[in-house]
Amino acid sequence: MAKNIKARSEDYSQWYLDVIKASQLADYAPVKGCMVIRPEGYALWEAIQRDLDRRFKDTGHVNAYFPLLIPTSFLEKEAAHVEGFAMECAVVTNSRLEKDPSGKGLRPASPLEEPLIIRPTSETVIGHMYAQWIQSYRDLPVLINQWCNVMRWEMRTRLFLRTAEFLWQEGHTAHETAKEAQEETLRMLDVYAAFAEEFLAVPVIKGKKTDAEKFPGADTTYCIEALMQDGKALQAGTSHNLGQNFSKAFDIKFLGRDQKQEHVWTTSWGVSTRLIGALIMQHSDDEGLVLPPKVAPTVAAIVPIFRGEEEKATVKAFTDKLVAELSGGQARAPRVSGDGIESFTWDPVTHQQIVVDWRDSRPGDKQYHWEQRGVPFRIEVGPRDVAAGAFVLKKRLDRSKETVQAADASRAWLTDRLDQVQRDMLGKARAFREENTRTVDSYDELKRIVTNEGGFVRCFFKPDRLVEAKIKEETKATVRCIPLEQSGLSGRCIYTGETTDTEVLFAVAY
Amino acid sequence: MAKNIKARSEDYSQWYLDVIKASQLADYAPVKGCMVIRPEGYALWEAIQRDLDRRFKDTGHVNAYFPLLIPTSFLEKEAAHVEGFAMECAVVTNSRLEKDPSGKGLRPASPLEEPLIIRPTSETVIGHMYAQWIQSYRDLPVLINQWCNVMRWEMRTRLFLRTAEFLWQEGHTAHETAKEAQEETLRMLDVYAAFAEEFLAVPVIKGKKTDAEKFPGADTTYCIEALMQDGKALQAGTSHNLGQNFSKAFDIKFLGRDQKQEHVWTTSWGVSTRLIGALIMQHSDDEGLVLPPKVAPTVAAIVPIFRGEEEKATVKAFTDKLVAELSGGQARAPRVSGDGIESFTWDPVTHQQIVVDWRDSRPGDKQYHWEQRGVPFRIEVGPRDVAAGAFVLKKRLDRSKETVQAADASRAWLTDRLDQVQRDMLGKARAFREENTRTVDSYDELKRIVTNEGGFVRCFFKPDRLVEAKIKEETKATVRCIPLEQSGLSGRCIYTGETTDTEVLFAVAY
Repeated sequence: MAKNIKARSEDYSQWYLDVIKASQLADYAPVKGCMVIRPEGYALWEAIQRDLDRRFKDTGHVNAYFPLLIPTSFLEKEAAHVEGFAMECAVVTNSRLEKDPSGKGLRPASPLEEPLIIRPTSETVIGHMYAQWIQSYRDLPVLINQWCNVMRWEMRTRLFLRTAEFLWQEGHTAHETAKEAQEETLRMLDVYAAFAEEFLAVPVIKGKKTDAEKFPGADTTYCIEALMQDGKALQAGTSHNLGQNFSKAFDIKFLGRDQKQEHVWTTSWGVSTRLIGALIMQHSDDEGLVLPPKVAPTVAAIVPIFRGEEEKATVKAFTDKLVAELSGGQARAPRVSGDGIESFTWDPVTHQQIVVDWRDSRPGDKQYHWEQRGVPFRIEVGPRDVAAGAFVLKKRLDRSKETVQAADASRAWLTDRLDQVQRDMLGKARAFREENTRTVDSYDELKRIVTNEGGFVRCFFKPDRLVEAKIKEETKATVRCIPLEQSGLSGRCIYTGETTDTEVLFAVAY
Repeated sequence: MAKNIKARSEDYSQWYLDVIKASQLADYAPVKGCMVIRPEGYALWEAIQRDLDRRFKDTGHVNAYFPLLIPTSFLEKEAAHVEGFAMECAVVTNSRLEKDPSGKGLRPASPLEEPLIIRPTSETVIGHMYAQWIQSYRDLPVLINQWCNVMRWEMRTRLFLRTAEFLWQEGHTAHETAKEAQEETLRMLDVYAAFAEEFLAVPVIKGKKTDAEKFPGADTTYCIEALMQDGKALQAGTSHNLGQNFSKAFDIKFLGRDQKQEHVWTTSWGVSTRLIGALIMQHSDDEGLVLPPKVAPTVAAIVPIFRGEEEKATVKAFTDKLVAELSGGQARAPRVSGDGIESFTWDPVTHQQIVVDWRDSRPGDKQYHWEQRGVPFRIEVGPRDVAAGAFVLKKRLDRSKETVQAADASRAWLTDRLDQVQRDMLGKARAFREENTRTVDSYDELKRIVTNEGGFVRCFFKPDRLVEAKIKEETKATVRCIPLEQSGLSGRCIYTGETTDTEVLFAVAY
């Protein structure tokens, strides 16, 4: 077992941090609650961005950039929004530093007329701009997305899952009719769900939030909910139908086909670097990170084994040919790191690579290095393998080992193997979720399961702000969502006993 | 002439703003000095990012993300840096807003122990992290880049060229030796120069800054300088050799091959959304934006001409086939905007598209629309063209018009035509620069040219902080750079008359 990583069974929270540390995904920043996303972690975000951005563009969206700073007065315009977002935020009050008269250090100078806040989300400033850009129904729909950083001053932070500053995308659309806004809200929910399952291999439940859990300022919030290995739920993305709440607050009007002025209907939707947290917690094991092949910056790591220059030359001739075969003849000259890792571009579009680890350290340490970083396949080649025209293939997912004839290796072969791992990972995660989704008829049962076993608990429930607050206090569990897939039956609310046809999913959540 | 755009000869500054407005590239934001990059403008930034990012990765760099907020105390650690950057910046002093006791509005609460500033550049916080990550020569080089937003509280702002918040990339590398750091500094200067010329079609002069103009904290700053149509220079990118200044300030040490502790050698280099300003001012004309084909989100806009449904059907059959031919059979179903513009993906990697404009407006207005947006080619198709098996091709660059046989149209044909335009644009910009680069022997001549003609003025000059300040005061011109290409001769400094072998470029700059 990995010495630098606590076992999940022993201390799940520590395991999570240890996996991040061992794979060098992120570090805490000098400013409390902020993080540094290290290159290994940022490569995951780049993969996520690339795939999601394509999906956004395929559904007709374009990107834009809105300002980081928002006037305080903007937040006050939408009543629910100000309660939800204005409170814990970074406030910019000065536009200059000056030398402290004591001679020591710097102090804020030139106070601003109106304090500004660093965007916690951008509905307000985008609403302000849309009011200027939209005049007529001909200008609709507006389908804009923004990739950016946001800040919310969180008290209890955890790398990727909850940090003061994080990276995300926020889509903001404006429509002519309520129907179109609703269609957009659900379309983007579907985009998120397909992305989570196909790309991250994270199965998700699509559902609607209860009023208690919805976005401040939304008519309806939809979400995708995933289940982590410790039985806690994680909200992986949200899509909000904002109705006319923001268009009324920011006066976004258009001249309709009937020549009348009307307020537009808006939506917003977002996912964040939190997805990297989901990725880690969904798939990783006690040995470290496990990455789905589509997300992995390195698809295969080749570890050569040799003694002396002669063996090295023999092995190198073999691995050079192997890389060429696995790349379908497309491999260009590698980049070589200072300590001797050769990186070959495997896919020029995704920038995924195959590495050959020529560092001056023990083969076992190298195996360990790539294993902890979640690389889907490691390939071991020593002089005996060369003689046998074969190599040893180690699969990260199940830690299995097999001997493969070099003659069988090709780009298509590797692609097939990677696809198989991708499918297996989604299947494994799905099976875990099914095993950990339980249906209950009573509040006592809910309490027992939430406390002892975790996982999703499905039951009939009549959403109610006060009741939900009470249940959260007593069990820590919240209504994760009202799944879009309902049985169509009715039953008795586990809390009040009233008849209802609403089934919900409860869970303790990140 | 375009009614919504001032002629360059009449009012160059207004022309610049009018071009931006007509092509909907950007708007001013509600917060003073900040901008909103609209989708048409952001698409240019995405194209820039895609191409530059590939060049960074090809030279072995990886991306990461460092925090937005920097403790004030970090800035104080490097003496030159604090003078250059600490003063005009956005200062975060509070982590919460609360309702004002008056009942009206919100006010800052929860003051921070130490004020934080929004990064104006990230040498300090990155230096702090590198000190933790780098232990041994085996950890070197560190070759990291970051794409992010930064803020500098500018007094006089201009869209893209100078705004309080802007987007950029900042590379930060650490090396074992001074030699390697210098090589990296020049390598990235070359990357920028090649990118500017090959991708933006903006010819640049590579050079070194004088001490008066270098980056606060650098040993040496290199730059690429471009010349705009009004004869002013624009600094398009910088690459700094920081020596051991930041490694000493932040104590970034490593155990060398000789088993001794040594400070690393660092570099930093960046380009920003300012490049979009350069792009506009280099190529555009009195009719609006002109985009180099490699940067253009839309490579060709087809404007159908028809009366009635029957003609429309005839024309549509023709344009559908034309799009298919121009796309090499790869065109998928188009996205259709609310007002009737069909967008076909032309290149799935760059997301460049071909549009067919079926909007319900006059063909002349549509021509105008795409012309002002700088689309390299417009294609006009009416019933008579269909009958003749031909279409009219309008080239944005020289506003020429020709009839092309539909049978000749193919993906290769369009690619060739686009490549030709790309070359022509670089050629035209180069010719303009050559015409506007003058060599002088005396300060009087310099003054006369700078005042009357503008452009680059080349001369022998002995860099000196005080003399440069004086010349700037008298002429507004500054030493843009000491070009890397020197004649090797010596001559008399135009200001002091002393003999020197240093030739410099003077110009009034943005």
